[in-house]
Amino acid sequence: MDKKRLSHHISRQFNVELEDLRTKVLAMGGFVEQQIENAIKALAENDIEIAENVITQDYQVNALEVAIDEECLQVLARRQPAASDLRLVVAVIKTITDLERIGDQAERVGRMAIHLSEVERPKSQYSELKHLGDQVREMLRGALDAFARMDAEAALDVARQDLTVDREYEGIMRQMITHMMEDPRNVKRTLDVMWSARALERIGDHARNICEYVIYFVKGKDVRHTSLEQMEDEIRK
Amino acid sequence: MDKKRLSHHISRQFNVELEDLRTKVLAMGGFVEQQIENAIKALAENDIEIAENVITQDYQVNALEVAIDEECLQVLARRQPAASDLRLVVAVIKTITDLERIGDQAERVGRMAIHLSEVERPKSQYSELKHLGDQVREMLRGALDAFARMDAEAALDVARQDLTVDREYEGIMRQMITHMMEDPRNVKRTLDVMWSARALERIGDHARNICEYVIYFVKGKDVRHTSLEQMEDEIRK
Repeated sequence: MDKKRLSHHISRQFNVELEDLRTKVLAMGGFVEQQIENAIKALAENDIEIAENVITQDYQVNALEVAIDEECLQVLARRQPAASDLRLVVAVIKTITDLERIGDQAERVGRMAIHLSEVERPKSQYSELKHLGDQVREMLRGALDAFARMDAEAALDVARQDLTVDREYEGIMRQMITHMMEDPRNVKRTLDVMWSARALERIGDHARNICEYVIYFVKGKDVRHTSLEQMEDEIRK
Repeated sequence: MDKKRLSHHISRQFNVELEDLRTKVLAMGGFVEQQIENAIKALAENDIEIAENVITQDYQVNALEVAIDEECLQVLARRQPAASDLRLVVAVIKTITDLERIGDQAERVGRMAIHLSEVERPKSQYSELKHLGDQVREMLRGALDAFARMDAEAALDVARQDLTVDREYEGIMRQMITHMMEDPRNVKRTLDVMWSARALERIGDHARNICEYVIYFVKGKDVRHTSLEQMEDEIRK
């Protein structure tokens, strides 16, 4: 958050607390991003050890969510923030819920990587999943950058990328359905690819949610459940 | 919420506001429950009109989420609640996020009902989905009852049901995989059944989340990401 925004606080300690919350969200986001990166690596490089690490480390994401949530509650109770400070705390509470669910999806991809390590690998080496995974990781990074700078324009740009992710996801799904119909022996492997694609696509949705909280913080306007055009109008106002 | 709990408020108006929040959450929950019921009905009875209604009405669920969220913010800003009042408001903020996502899953089931209306129906008339759907609707109703009475024991009972739902979901998935392998012409229809089952299973997870917020409100203890045994220990303490 902009230092100037913070400077109006009479209590220096309150500034420190808000800044601390922000830092912790970004640290949690960085950890989750790493989890996605590792899950995709496990899938693309057939590395079971990395996959297992992703799975066992998910509890850390959960612990971060609980700890930050608790800190938000304490700030609310002790500081009784108003206006943009209150919006910041609420945006944090919502953002960490999405980060935690992104963590769950990364864990799911890790599990699929283990399933897929047990069957023959296709020539593609799951490059389509790697590509989709890289895209949603990029989205999450963009969402966290927008959060770090509380930049509504940047948030809108990231939210727009979700359309590309959705299109790519639909393409993978169509391709997988064809695979299955061609050869029923492919069914189990193909379903695992589909579940992975679905998990990655969900990560894109959660990243978009985070962008919406950024816009909500900056503009004081709830843009969830609106179209990209409506979001754009809100920001340009 | 227990009337006695509320009675400590000096401001009668504050009581009215908290009571109003609670009522609105229950109304939103009731609407979402109806959406699930209709989505399952559309699927089981091959009724496209009902399915379309579920889809077009989802915007109402979204609107309720945004409105209640806004009201929570106003209560936080104006009343600066502490202790159990603060926990109530935070529990409301979290509960409506899950209710909104349950609404999305009901919409998804509605879409699948439309897809499935275009292909031949199996003898079962999708009774396995109807059964799973009835179970998760029961879970949601139980979670809302526990929320209405802020009853941690009842919440724990409902959270326990998620195990049965998960087992039933796994059973459907295994059965569908067998179907697909037996006859590749079944692939598309079977995938739609799988997506529906998945959506219903997710509803169970969201209902369990709501139970966790109830326990959090009553016990002041965050029981997310803990086992049922740990939840039980917390409640019995």
